[in-house]
Amino acid sequence: MREFIVFARKAWTKPFNLNDLVNAGRMDVIARCISSALFISYAIRNDTNIYISLNGPPNPPILLKFFGDRLKGIYYDERSVAGKINEALKKIYKVKEESEIEVSEGFFVSKESFESFLKKKAKESRIIYLHEEGRDIREVEFSGNEIFVLGDHKGLPEKTEMFLKKLNVEKISLGPLSYLASHCIVIVHNELDRKGL
Amino acid sequence: MREFIVFARKAWTKPFNLNDLVNAGRMDVIARCISSALFISYAIRNDTNIYISLNGPPNPPILLKFFGDRLKGIYYDERSVAGKINEALKKIYKVKEESEIEVSEGFFVSKESFESFLKKKAKESRIIYLHEEGRDIREVEFSGNEIFVLGDHKGLPEKTEMFLKKLNVEKISLGPLSYLASHCIVIVHNELDRKGL
Repeated sequence: MREFIVFARKAWTKPFNLNDLVNAGRMDVIARCISSALFISYAIRNDTNIYISLNGPPNPPILLKFFGDRLKGIYYDERSVAGKINEALKKIYKVKEESEIEVSEGFFVSKESFESFLKKKAKESRIIYLHEEGRDIREVEFSGNEIFVLGDHKGLPEKTEMFLKKLNVEKISLGPLSYLASHCIVIVHNELDRKGL
Repeated sequence: MREFIVFARKAWTKPFNLNDLVNAGRMDVIARCISSALFISYAIRNDTNIYISLNGPPNPPILLKFFGDRLKGIYYDERSVAGKINEALKKIYKVKEESEIEVSEGFFVSKESFESFLKKKAKESRIIYLHEEGRDIREVEFSGNEIFVLGDHKGLPEKTEMFLKKLNVEKISLGPLSYLASHCIVIVHNELDRKGL
């Protein structure tokens, strides 16, 4: 399974106005990441999952999970994806416990933190941090069982960087420039598609 | 100069509702293409231009031109980009003649057709049609003076395909899958960035 997780520093953890994604802690950035991870022309990538860790106000952390092999009723423009996120936030907003809620087929939300989720993932998957200083993705071998970690437009907080360092996470780079998070996902997909994974 | 042109079959040629880009002839697809062409992390690509040929109702064709080296006051979320397109459509909507209007710094609109524009471009640039059946982009040499032609989610009409054939346009492919137009632009950029162009 191809997997991505985005750490969203500022993305709101309460319902927001669909006409103003930018001021909901850059929910537009998050919507584009989800869309880039899950869609090709005329199809959903059923070999891909994407997770979003929302860490903005007022009630962080919240974890969104999209499973490509089961996902239904999602469309790929920013507003539609943001509408799905809003559905989840309406359901979880006032929930205290960690239990996971199924928002719609293949889409789940919980109060789990980035760290707690990734610690579990580390037992079953290779974790890769997309970073300008990493090894070139074209020179790396993959098994098809990787989870790629991305920051949003603000990058990762120092604390989270330290956490990844302790997990001994590999750094991989995508090219000579610093790309938008959603564009990073497109480039990773293209490379893995070419590698036949 | 790196250049892209998108032939948008259905995108409206009159002002539209920013809350419903999908039903304005998939203006969301067009907004994402523009965003993918022009933005990297924290910067506009000043080596890139993108042109959009709008061919939907009620008043086609309309040509949008974005020049990366001069562009000001544009932001990269779908709604903001669509807002810029709307500004242009409000200015050109009822204009009959072919004269070009400067909408804002580095952004122009005119009544020119895809064919007329590309015929002129053919004299100064190499035209490349992104197509699944083309030669692999990684095996192709570029000069940095190419214009890449893309269809939107509906692909190119037969008439336009014939026009490109007559121009002897090369076909180039990006990988084993069929990607969304905006994702194709990201992949082309990454390849040219790596080639140092």
